[in-house]
Amino acid sequence: MTSWRTIAAKKKAEQLALIPKEWTLKLDDITQQVEVDVSSIPDTCGLLNAKEIQITNSDLPDLLEKLAAGEWSSVSVTTAFYKRAIIAHQLTNCLTEIFIERALARAAGLDDHLQKTGTVVGPLHGLPVSLKDQINIKGLESCMGYVSWVGIFADKNSVLTDILENAGAVIFVKTNIPQTLMWAETFNHVFGRTSNPFNRSLTSGGSSGGEGALVAMRGSPLGVGSDIGGSIRIPAAFCGTYGLRPSYGRVPYAGCVNSLEGQDSAPSVLGPLSNSIAGIKTFMKTVIDARPWLKDPLAVRKRWSDDEYNLADHGNGQNLCFAIMWDDGMIVPHPPIIRGLEIVKKALLDAGHKVIDWKPSKHAEMYKCLGDIWTAGAAEDFSVVTAMTGEPVIASMIPDDEIPVVDIVDKHQIVDALAPGISAYRLWQTHKKKRMLREEYLQLWEDTAGMTGTGRAVDAIISPAAPYTAVRHGQNKSAQYTMVWNVLDYSTLVIPVSRVDPTIDIVKAPHEFYNEEDKANYNIYNPANFANAPISVQLVGRTLEEEAVIAMGEIVDKALKRAQVIETQRNI
Amino acid sequence: MTSWRTIAAKKKAEQLALIPKEWTLKLDDITQQVEVDVSSIPDTCGLLNAKEIQITNSDLPDLLEKLAAGEWSSVSVTTAFYKRAIIAHQLTNCLTEIFIERALARAAGLDDHLQKTGTVVGPLHGLPVSLKDQINIKGLESCMGYVSWVGIFADKNSVLTDILENAGAVIFVKTNIPQTLMWAETFNHVFGRTSNPFNRSLTSGGSSGGEGALVAMRGSPLGVGSDIGGSIRIPAAFCGTYGLRPSYGRVPYAGCVNSLEGQDSAPSVLGPLSNSIAGIKTFMKTVIDARPWLKDPLAVRKRWSDDEYNLADHGNGQNLCFAIMWDDGMIVPHPPIIRGLEIVKKALLDAGHKVIDWKPSKHAEMYKCLGDIWTAGAAEDFSVVTAMTGEPVIASMIPDDEIPVVDIVDKHQIVDALAPGISAYRLWQTHKKKRMLREEYLQLWEDTAGMTGTGRAVDAIISPAAPYTAVRHGQNKSAQYTMVWNVLDYSTLVIPVSRVDPTIDIVKAPHEFYNEEDKANYNIYNPANFANAPISVQLVGRTLEEEAVIAMGEIVDKALKRAQVIETQRNI
Repeated sequence: MTSWRTIAAKKKAEQLALIPKEWTLKLDDITQQVEVDVSSIPDTCGLLNAKEIQITNSDLPDLLEKLAAGEWSSVSVTTAFYKRAIIAHQLTNCLTEIFIERALARAAGLDDHLQKTGTVVGPLHGLPVSLKDQINIKGLESCMGYVSWVGIFADKNSVLTDILENAGAVIFVKTNIPQTLMWAETFNHVFGRTSNPFNRSLTSGGSSGGEGALVAMRGSPLGVGSDIGGSIRIPAAFCGTYGLRPSYGRVPYAGCVNSLEGQDSAPSVLGPLSNSIAGIKTFMKTVIDARPWLKDPLAVRKRWSDDEYNLADHGNGQNLCFAIMWDDGMIVPHPPIIRGLEIVKKALLDAGHKVIDWKPSKHAEMYKCLGDIWTAGAAEDFSVVTAMTGEPVIASMIPDDEIPVVDIVDKHQIVDALAPGISAYRLWQTHKKKRMLREEYLQLWEDTAGMTGTGRAVDAIISPAAPYTAVRHGQNKSAQYTMVWNVLDYSTLVIPVSRVDPTIDIVKAPHEFYNEEDKANYNIYNPANFANAPISVQLVGRTLEEEAVIAMGEIVDKALKRAQVIETQRNI
Repeated sequence: MTSWRTIAAKKKAEQLALIPKEWTLKLDDITQQVEVDVSSIPDTCGLLNAKEIQITNSDLPDLLEKLAAGEWSSVSVTTAFYKRAIIAHQLTNCLTEIFIERALARAAGLDDHLQKTGTVVGPLHGLPVSLKDQINIKGLESCMGYVSWVGIFADKNSVLTDILENAGAVIFVKTNIPQTLMWAETFNHVFGRTSNPFNRSLTSGGSSGGEGALVAMRGSPLGVGSDIGGSIRIPAAFCGTYGLRPSYGRVPYAGCVNSLEGQDSAPSVLGPLSNSIAGIKTFMKTVIDARPWLKDPLAVRKRWSDDEYNLADHGNGQNLCFAIMWDDGMIVPHPPIIRGLEIVKKALLDAGHKVIDWKPSKHAEMYKCLGDIWTAGAAEDFSVVTAMTGEPVIASMIPDDEIPVVDIVDKHQIVDALAPGISAYRLWQTHKKKRMLREEYLQLWEDTAGMTGTGRAVDAIISPAAPYTAVRHGQNKSAQYTMVWNVLDYSTLVIPVSRVDPTIDIVKAPHEFYNEEDKANYNIYNPANFANAPISVQLVGRTLEEEAVIAMGEIVDKALKRAQVIETQRNI
């Protein structure tokens, strides 16, 4: 049997060979440094011409308009984003599958169609779209970072791939993930580690970490990730992009490969990452308008509702009341995160909305509940897959050069280190507990009606996406700020707010620690280490309320941009 | 510890004591016979006066109109239905909790409200509604046939109870179920056995068998059951009423007691039984309009859609195409069921619709899949509850006087006789299988678009509800005709068609049997044994398509009634 290392090395070499020489970066002293912001290199490296720089820096509605008008061809747009994606990859290691010819042929076909018929194929006509590695594209691999799955080619598209292509998208790259997908960072034996574009000593987050880095580098105008505990939102937050975790079943998942398959207790969902809320909305409306329930039986039969988007359930968007959760009662966020919440609060108040405090309840129990569900069968799931090649199950995200865990790991120990599986009956008891927690949280939310002054319960919660901005590789261990919303199945949007500024985001005096983890988190904050890292928040709405969450996200985003303009004017 | 027999006997005696003497039937020779149609006894026994007979024979829209207009008081309507329910109970043993004073006090309160304000409380103002035993009502027991749960009083209403009461309903009785709910008949140690009103040697079906018998006796204008594998539809079909199995989460379930709690793989759902589709529609619209997702986190956020009810997805109801499933490839239905399908086919063709044959696929695998899910933890679930009193887990629905299984049963053996539990990881593999089967069935359905001539896939499937009409107690062993739609989560409505007529529904020559069970089913058919049993069909629509299923049910029902009128005219 070929060793797993050989298979992995061969696949990685094949990937490298797919990068055209003329798109190869000349790595100078600066770009080889780890602790560096590489986000602007695509614009400055000289590989992109002026038009390509313009294209890749365009907003999504602009792109779609120019593509539909034939002003920009899909070939030129796809080429521009492909080049930029390849540059981003050389700087952050964000890609898995690369298929330039195929994508350009598809783009040329769309250009032909538009030229001949004068009509677009659909609302995404000609737009390059990136997909997380697990989303199947016919004829390509979806090894998902498992050496064991290298060389397995999908025999058909996933339902979402079909929907995007029917809408006119040009699927053009697949993006990196951690082995098993069950990490909030991005590293696997096949493709290696993805880094944060704003500071490569920091993680891009995970598991959709490739998407986070790629979109933040403007290497893709629209990416698709998946989220079982924060896997869209953590990379979006760490990389400073927008990212939506839709409710279970709002976006069709059929035809993807996955980890923990059959774990239906709190299922993973697919959702978009983009550099604007317009990208998020365009994706959701396009997918839902395609009536995915006729293609995936688990997709919820619920049409896109303009009524809900117009905030019919939220006073038509006038005089909203947001509740800010400053901490979750387990870990107090680092100073930049608190500052981010303060910026949002001020912007919303200035825009005429109300803001109250959110009093979280039983987050520790919800966090434990989701962990119990995952570990109910995770060890067996991982071991079945990795047994095919004997590749080790990765036990740590700490880079090899710091602690060489991955290669020397005793596989048996790893499985032992994970909770052993439980019985189906025990899992049912966890479900009972989960249902009770969800009922209590709904009541908690409804009970705010008496505090808002709007006659309604709180319209949305503003929450940290993590107790920190992007951390150093191997240090992202606390996903409870995202996981609780998965347990509750709340529709949740990440919105970028600012960047870490070591001169402002200074260390605060120690607070009374909730627990050892809280103390440890306090102690790792050192402003210099986090310089330039994006600061983001989550906007949390109700289950299946994607339309309203997007609309409220637009309101928050607009308020933030208005505040920024005022701030800038003041500084001039 | 008090023996379970003592607890059960005491509870049953208490129930008996709640029946007013003046509502007690004088049992004569006829009514004491088992093989007898008792359905008309309420009208003839002399306990109901003329107005009470008129009230209880009224259609639901009529009732609601007269209640809203104050023409009939809620006290008079509730009294009439209560008397009739008590009569039905004496004939079929359909009730569990009886609370006459409480219901009449509630009715009086509603009458007061209407008189004082001139307005109704809601769309169900003053209407008596019956609930399956498991649906909690504050202050009452929901022992669900478990001796172990006798004496536990609910500390609050279920969400559905609240919604119905807020809509003006008078909850007035609770109805009988089998122990564990996991039988398609109705018998437990506490309340005993429910019989079929049209022939008491036959079962009323289960697990909502009390509702089936009660509604068929017109002892309740609207009842609520639950369905995990056919538990609404089998009693509806066996008793000749309408019954809807909504999709997962369309009707809120929070706050009920249940069996196999935490089994979320193919969850039980609540749904209505009534003597008209108007009753079904009124229930669904009322419940959904109450926005149950703000009260139960598992309720789907999907408003009632008049657009879908007007069949926007089905050519606006003109020229529909139905597909009839004559058998499921496992068991060929008895002659009356086939005749029922033929009646529906002719009626639909006469009404100008198209009818093609449905070719089922992999029903055996879906049937097995649901069984695997139930048994994953059922034995432990049953044993935990029954251990509280040591009551035996019921191992058979065959009446004691035929085979005295229940009392002498060795509990340990029963648990062994059930499949032992499986691991959570094994359950995940079953989920994978289930998802694949659902994907294949969706494709099967979509692929009919080429056969209908309407430009659409088949609008609905017409299927038997069981391979037989109501069978003798203990003989209802084949629930696959309902279970498959639970696995697929299809919205499914039972519609009554006719009654068994031994002179028409004669034995057919043996067919080539699919298997031993098919042969056994053929052999038990003896027209005389089934005389008068209702013949029904299921109308099967898509997931979360309740509005369209109700509308298509109205079309089928109207076609059947028109055919009946023509038939009657021809016979005159």
